[in-house]
Amino acid sequence: MNLLLLTSADLLSPTTAQVCDYRAEHLRKIHRSSVGDQLRVGVVNGSMGTATITSITDSAVTLDFDCSCSPPAPMPLTLVLALPRPQMLKRSLQTLATMGVKDVHLIGSARVEKSFWSSPMLNGEEINRQLILGLEQGIDTVLPSIEFHKRFKPFVEDILPTLCQGKNAWVAHPGNSTPCPRASVGPQLLVIGPEGGFLDYEVEKLTAAGCQQIQLGPRILRVETALPVLLSRFYPH
Amino acid sequence: MNLLLLTSADLLSPTTAQVCDYRAEHLRKIHRSSVGDQLRVGVVNGSMGTATITSITDSAVTLDFDCSCSPPAPMPLTLVLALPRPQMLKRSLQTLATMGVKDVHLIGSARVEKSFWSSPMLNGEEINRQLILGLEQGIDTVLPSIEFHKRFKPFVEDILPTLCQGKNAWVAHPGNSTPCPRASVGPQLLVIGPEGGFLDYEVEKLTAAGCQQIQLGPRILRVETALPVLLSRFYPH
Repeated sequence: MNLLLLTSADLLSPTTAQVCDYRAEHLRKIHRSSVGDQLRVGVVNGSMGTATITSITDSAVTLDFDCSCSPPAPMPLTLVLALPRPQMLKRSLQTLATMGVKDVHLIGSARVEKSFWSSPMLNGEEINRQLILGLEQGIDTVLPSIEFHKRFKPFVEDILPTLCQGKNAWVAHPGNSTPCPRASVGPQLLVIGPEGGFLDYEVEKLTAAGCQQIQLGPRILRVETALPVLLSRFYPH
Repeated sequence: MNLLLLTSADLLSPTTAQVCDYRAEHLRKIHRSSVGDQLRVGVVNGSMGTATITSITDSAVTLDFDCSCSPPAPMPLTLVLALPRPQMLKRSLQTLATMGVKDVHLIGSARVEKSFWSSPMLNGEEINRQLILGLEQGIDTVLPSIEFHKRFKPFVEDILPTLCQGKNAWVAHPGNSTPCPRASVGPQLLVIGPEGGFLDYEVEKLTAAGCQQIQLGPRILRVETALPVLLSRFYPH
């Protein structure tokens, strides 16, 4: 936890807050915080700054804070990700939040197992929890927007072409296509397939919607590895 | 499993093999393999090729195989990693094996918790299991070498300077140092610290041993995310 992220429910006043959940425990047990300690704080979807701990009890930590700094610039990238298996989704949500992605579309495709769509991980609160963990790690306050598109064809025909407008759009797919570009300028859209990859038919539909096929070399990476690798290729800083 | 990796214990003859463990189950249940199916195989620390399934029972899958291709080129990078917590070590071992790192040194440092050194994950068999999973994912046969150096000071004073010889050596550490280079030529050595980072004293010792400090920007990445990000910066393909 490199940033203590406060929600409106934590605020006692515009400059004081009290946290009672895993954050209080983390401050007590991992940071071994004491009254008077300073730490980095932010308000969800708001500004960031510094807090001073004013009280610690077994159940709560109370802080005075002053938040006047802007959060870091978002990564100007729209991510379209075939819904990964729940544990991989969990880590992918943390990673994309840490790295500053703000616009995410989770889609169905032939090799996305139907059962993934009924995972408890897709619950709004659970998704939020993973995104918050990612923001706390990456020192950012702005929650990514996550949209679901269970059916591939309506998404790729009716929604994707609009999402691609004004962006360079790419689909990462193993094969003999162009290598992934290094260091891109301006807004990008990146599509990452499921374990086992997109079907040829799906790649054709994605290409028709405006996505150029790119690949990462002969080694096949898991989705949760391909994600940070691709993001850091597009935006080296 | 993009490659079925065979050990000498699996070989019935130089061109036939039988697998009985999670690999047989994976072929039956995930790949839904049938007799006559072809698949990619490799022999641990040997060559790669194609196999044809000749029999499937509830407990075993038997194959004829022909391995005459070389595994992919290794990543010419020596990785020095402060021992991460067990679950993160597990994923990091898979990732580095998938991405082609072959020379790994797991080290102690002030912020490596002592308990990590007694984790069952450090058992040789368990480490091998994770590396094999990584190789099966990345389509490679060559097991990375993993060495342990529990004490930071003897490692950094007596071993690291020799490891650095003939390489560009880097320590990734948040701060105002040089950004991580993009696309390096020739052998590199990369040091990645623990959660919470190296102490200033440790960074000084690493610098004195020949490592140049680099950073990845203002967002702090978890070790398991920083690892693929850094590797892909050094070797974009």
